[in-house]
Amino acid sequence: MLEELKEKVCQANLDLVKHGLVIFTWGNVSAIDRTEGLVVIKPSGVSYDNMKPSDMVVVDLDGQVVEGSLNPSSDTPTHVVLYRVFQEIGGVVHTHSTYATAWAQAGRDIPNIGTTHADYFHDAIPCTDDMTDPEVKGAYELETGNIIVRRFEGLNPVHTPGVLVKNHGPFSWGKDASDAVHNAVVVEQVAKMAYIALGINPLLTMNPLLVEKHFSRKHGPDAYYGQKKK
Amino acid sequence: MLEELKEKVCQANLDLVKHGLVIFTWGNVSAIDRTEGLVVIKPSGVSYDNMKPSDMVVVDLDGQVVEGSLNPSSDTPTHVVLYRVFQEIGGVVHTHSTYATAWAQAGRDIPNIGTTHADYFHDAIPCTDDMTDPEVKGAYELETGNIIVRRFEGLNPVHTPGVLVKNHGPFSWGKDASDAVHNAVVVEQVAKMAYIALGINPLLTMNPLLVEKHFSRKHGPDAYYGQKKK
Amino acid sequence: MLEELKEKVCQANLDLVKHGLVIFTWGNVSAIDRTEGLVVIKPSGVSYDNMKPSDMVVVDLDGQVVEGSLNPSSDTPTHVVLYRVFQEIGGVVHTHSTYATAWAQAGRDIPNIGTTHADYFHDAIPCTDDMTDPEVKGAYELETGNIIVRRFEGLNPVHTPGVLVKNHGPFSWGKDASDAVHNAVVVEQVAKMAYIALGINPLLTMNPLLVEKHFSRKHGPDAYYGQKKK
Amino acid sequence: MLEELKEKVCQANLDLVKHGLVIFTWGNVSAIDRTEGLVVIKPSGVSYDNMKPSDMVVVDLDGQVVEGSLNPSSDTPTHVVLYRVFQEIGGVVHTHSTYATAWAQAGRDIPNIGTTHADYFHDAIPCTDDMTDPEVKGAYELETGNIIVRRFEGLNPVHTPGVLVKNHGPFSWGKDASDAVHNAVVVEQVAKMAYIALGINPLLTMNPLLVEKHFSRKHGPDAYYGQKKK
Repeated sequence: MLEELKEKVCQANLDLVKHGLVIFTWGNVSAIDRTEGLVVIKPSGVSYDNMKPSDMVVVDLDGQVVEGSLNPSSDTPTHVVLYRVFQEIGGVVHTHSTYATAWAQAGRDIPNIGTTHADYFHDAIPCTDDMTDPEVKGAYELETGNIIVRRFEGLNPVHTPGVLVKNHGPFSWGKDASDAVHNAVVVEQVAKMAYIALGINPLLTMNPLLVEKHFSRKHGPDAYYGQKKK
Repeated sequence: MLEELKEKVCQANLDLVKHGLVIFTWGNVSAIDRTEGLVVIKPSGVSYDNMKPSDMVVVDLDGQVVEGSLNPSSDTPTHVVLYRVFQEIGGVVHTHSTYATAWAQAGRDIPNIGTTHADYFHDAIPCTDDMTDPEVKGAYELETGNIIVRRFEGLNPVHTPGVLVKNHGPFSWGKDASDAVHNAVVVEQVAKMAYIALGINPLLTMNPLLVEKHFSRKHGPDAYYGQKKK
Repeated sequence: MLEELKEKVCQANLDLVKHGLVIFTWGNVSAIDRTEGLVVIKPSGVSYDNMKPSDMVVVDLDGQVVEGSLNPSSDTPTHVVLYRVFQEIGGVVHTHSTYATAWAQAGRDIPNIGTTHADYFHDAIPCTDDMTDPEVKGAYELETGNIIVRRFEGLNPVHTPGVLVKNHGPFSWGKDASDAVHNAVVVEQVAKMAYIALGINPLLTMNPLLVEKHFSRKHGPDAYYGQKKK
Repeated sequence: MLEELKEKVCQANLDLVKHGLVIFTWGNVSAIDRTEGLVVIKPSGVSYDNMKPSDMVVVDLDGQVVEGSLNPSSDTPTHVVLYRVFQEIGGVVHTHSTYATAWAQAGRDIPNIGTTHADYFHDAIPCTDDMTDPEVKGAYELETGNIIVRRFEGLNPVHTPGVLVKNHGPFSWGKDASDAVHNAVVVEQVAKMAYIALGINPLLTMNPLLVEKHFSRKHGPDAYYGQKKK
């Protein structure tokens, strides 16, 4: 089932390696078929070297395995929370990419201080709060999803397609698996540039109108970046 | 038309990727034919993977498309301002290269504190001022060109072949597309070394005579670096 | 003798280069055959370019050569101390990998402030004390082993499979040579991320429960990360 | 003449690129034939892409061209000063490698705070003083050699095979061209690690005995690192 989606999800996982976002098994990509209400996700702890589409695992929106002989990613409960609450998204990525993870370890939002950032993210890339002890001891991966959702109260997940889970690392999403990987690359690059900028000038600022301009010229009704969609 | 120039501009765009200055579609190169008064520029939002000379767009010095089926780079109005005002230049490059962009986000000139810098740039690599709200809301990309031009009052663009647009990233230029790419590489490398030097010693200085020496041994009437031009 | 182990140790040495942890001859891997009480180790100062299994040297647990025409690594006495005292380990790696060595030069433990770290190390990656003058002047490489062992009083080497030797660099270990190399990669990556995080926020903290959670979901009786062992 | 030496010098120049120490034409290697009193050096401003042994230029110890149709490196007068004064050396390298150049721009010696450093350099890697205005205006490249020599008053160039020229970049040397390149790699790697260490702990120290130990186990009469020389 969902063979085409499995191919896309497998390829998206391999793209994480190609973009230098993942070593060993430190990342995972999923995508959802909204019609079926089913999610295709990378298996847990499997090396990227020989990964193939048929290794992908199909789970329902409760994270229960529907098809596949391998265990799904241990982060599966986080992915399904995001799909349940962020109805507009079609793909989710989790990595431990170097600079984004460092910001998560520092517990700081990545401030929106450049047009590279504003081309993709309307606001800062937010960092979640600390999880409570019952959350850590309880259904930890599901609560990881919940704490992301709580952090997005008042934020539009389509306009801010990524988050830092405190002391952990980035999650990003998009309209499909490939778009979510694209945003994972952006999060890492933006994290690196903001880190360097902070070392040059601790007082970083950006005119909010410039943020608005860059975001809206690529997104929204009057976008004029790129080629006309066919 | 301008088929030879299209090949050079296409190659120069691909060279940005080869030098690690660009990911995705985050950069663009143009070159001008001064006799015709026409500019060849990369199309907007097109992937570098399959880019070919025939994809290049020809625009006039007002930025109007003269030939080409794709939209020109959204930064086209900035490029044409530079060609109109900086009469000596033949090629323009824009990137979001990591370290140069970080300096732009920090809103700081890159100080001239090394001979690597002085071999190519007579002065600091200047950072523009903030744009005003009307500039951002108005003809934004054209105003980006204007704010660069304003920053160069009293500076010779041939002796300082690059600039940082605040909160955005670097533009560089040269006698042709290839030379402008060369200077884009220099801007990024100089930005990286100045960032590291700043972390070692916040009080960076350089004897102005040493700047003069290095700049003049590669440029100007008494240059003696390299081989005799044939 | 131990031909199979020599192949594994040779491959593990080459993997150090592949993972970017070693230039020139700045690293070494060994593994132990616990039944025979013999250690296979890289020869000293030999280039990785043409290294082959038959170059590996076999030493006993006193570091005396049992087989091999080349001198064993000058760090051999350190390796054998670790095998003698840490009975559970099967492989040892030493590198001068960039970020981990920098922490060693700074004389600081790498704090456990991320789940990447906690997935592999239960505690901070400890840095040893200064060696005394008699230790440096005496059996230096053996004393390097002893100072590691002293630093592990109260620590479980299986739960903390690596250490920084002050002003020198990292040692790591694991159940075999390949696992020790894996941990060497983790030490370097964790060192890099902690360095960057420290630049963003000098006051790094992590909920100890979160450490516990991540360590125990990959290790110990209730581990649920990855696939079932066959 | 000196065809064998030209091949070695050409190869050493190409190795600079392979080790990531040089972009464009920003580096040069030379070697001396002490019997003939002649130096083979890279031509000035020539691309590494098509460089071949026959492009190398032969100069005497006054820097005068003895053979070769291309101009020698503009840094030739610096090289020949080093050969004249440091009688034990056989090869010289100059690069603008990133981290070493940043230390030079910061005007700081690279402190000896790690065994990686002490394995090759007995002391800090020294940074020269500012050149005087007459030196910059006069025979600049020759005076660059002189200021290096002045900085080595009281230092043994064999035990400290490299230097930072203030606001410029590193020079290194060795018993031949290949050894000088090896030391150029070490200077860059040591510069990078010291920079990172400084960011973790501004107060870097190392037991002088440990320096002595590491330097002497690789160099001097009682060296025991590596294999016996045949």
